[in-house]
Amino acid sequence: MRCIHLTVAYDGTEFSGWQWQPDRRTVQGAMEAAIRNVTGESLRVVGSGRTDTGVHAYGQGVSFTTASQLEPAVLLRALNANLPHDVRIMQAREARSDFCAIRHSAGKRYRYLIHNDSIPDVFARNRAWFIHETLDIDAMRQAAQGLIGRHDFKSYESAGSPRLATIRTIRDFTVTRETTFDVSQRIVIEVEADGFLYNMVRNLVGTLVQVGKGKQPASWPTEILAARDRRLAGPTAPPQGLYMLRVYFSTNDS
Amino acid sequence: MRCIHLTVAYDGTEFSGWQWQPDRRTVQGAMEAAIRNVTGESLRVVGSGRTDTGVHAYGQGVSFTTASQLEPAVLLRALNANLPHDVRIMQAREARSDFCAIRHSAGKRYRYLIHNDSIPDVFARNRAWFIHETLDIDAMRQAAQGLIGRHDFKSYESAGSPRLATIRTIRDFTVTRETTFDVSQRIVIEVEADGFLYNMVRNLVGTLVQVGKGKQPASWPTEILAARDRRLAGPTAPPQGLYMLRVYFSTNDS
Repeated sequence: MRCIHLTVAYDGTEFSGWQWQPDRRTVQGAMEAAIRNVTGESLRVVGSGRTDTGVHAYGQGVSFTTASQLEPAVLLRALNANLPHDVRIMQAREARSDFCAIRHSAGKRYRYLIHNDSIPDVFARNRAWFIHETLDIDAMRQAAQGLIGRHDFKSYESAGSPRLATIRTIRDFTVTRETTFDVSQRIVIEVEADGFLYNMVRNLVGTLVQVGKGKQPASWPTEILAARDRRLAGPTAPPQGLYMLRVYFSTNDS
Repeated sequence: MRCIHLTVAYDGTEFSGWQWQPDRRTVQGAMEAAIRNVTGESLRVVGSGRTDTGVHAYGQGVSFTTASQLEPAVLLRALNANLPHDVRIMQAREARSDFCAIRHSAGKRYRYLIHNDSIPDVFARNRAWFIHETLDIDAMRQAAQGLIGRHDFKSYESAGSPRLATIRTIRDFTVTRETTFDVSQRIVIEVEADGFLYNMVRNLVGTLVQVGKGKQPASWPTEILAARDRRLAGPTAPPQGLYMLRVYFSTNDS
């Protein structure tokens, strides 16, 4: 048996998230159906993160064990030919036999897009959070920088999938304003950590936006860490602005 | 009666083009329904260009005559509240009473996006033409520059909506390669002219792509002008890469 490691992109708009569910269109379900078509095997694939409904990915990590002898490049083409157009395998390689996309994940990087303009961009409606109030980017950037490092992020964990350990290390947290095409202003937030709690990125973004709107000072997102209380942080940002950008793995030969 | 001039953006993916048709979802139909809701009037709006199914717009020009006394800014908000999420009015102003978005159009600028990479980008599938062969941008740029100026573009006019006069002046024609996000290579083509024949932009792009693939020399798109024969030019590029970017008008006070 061989272990295959895939990097997968998807437009989450028309999926009920990553995880397989009966009678729902999910990314995991689409991948397992494609593998069944190509190799004849009914198997489970493992994803590095369980993205929610409407959340997108440029680089979801996926692993599975197969008896197929197809070369990774051949497998990539065959699977892409059997996948719907809103999922694409970007890379395929053979990993060591015990490789697991969850267990060997050593960090992830997410992007969150905010469309910040007076009128919604028709092309961003499923791909960004539309906010018409002008946001103070400098204050948001300062708030983000205060969260970099090793902290207990319990205040940024949504209910539903609690973790025993809530300490994580944010390695990078950037806030940038970009002009796309001629008409549109967007804010690009990127955050990288050794791991994330449930809804942590969306809760961090919702909190930064409170700062950007001037409702809270730039020091507030750091201050509420100590309370370990989700009710103190800002609202959860909507899913359509979130992109799983990249997964980092702890093994060199995966 | 007042004349209102709108600038309208739409994602053409789920529309059967601009022009009103019975039992079809069209942009003109959506705009007229919104106006009926806001002003109570059943009227026709005029669009500067009749975009086809799947073609997008950042700046379609629209005009209509109304008895409504609503200020343009109020009208903009009210109409946007009554339009589906894939159409947005970006600007509204009062024009002189005889203003017409077709008759006073003095030029248009279009953008065409090509996604040129080894694997399709899931986010560009309805918004660009995917071509996996590497394209020679320099040759395409040289070909585009040869077409700038006043020429008979009969060879670039599709059947279906013939014009008596087929001479047009291309004022600008650019080809640029851009890297978006981390994963994706795209080619941005922009062409501006005093007017366009039916499918002219898509026929020009299809012809430039033949040059980009090395199937024809950079001089070929200019050489075939003289024949005035559509069969000599390249294939029509698909609609989903095309964006009506901007309309220029001949009146200052529109």
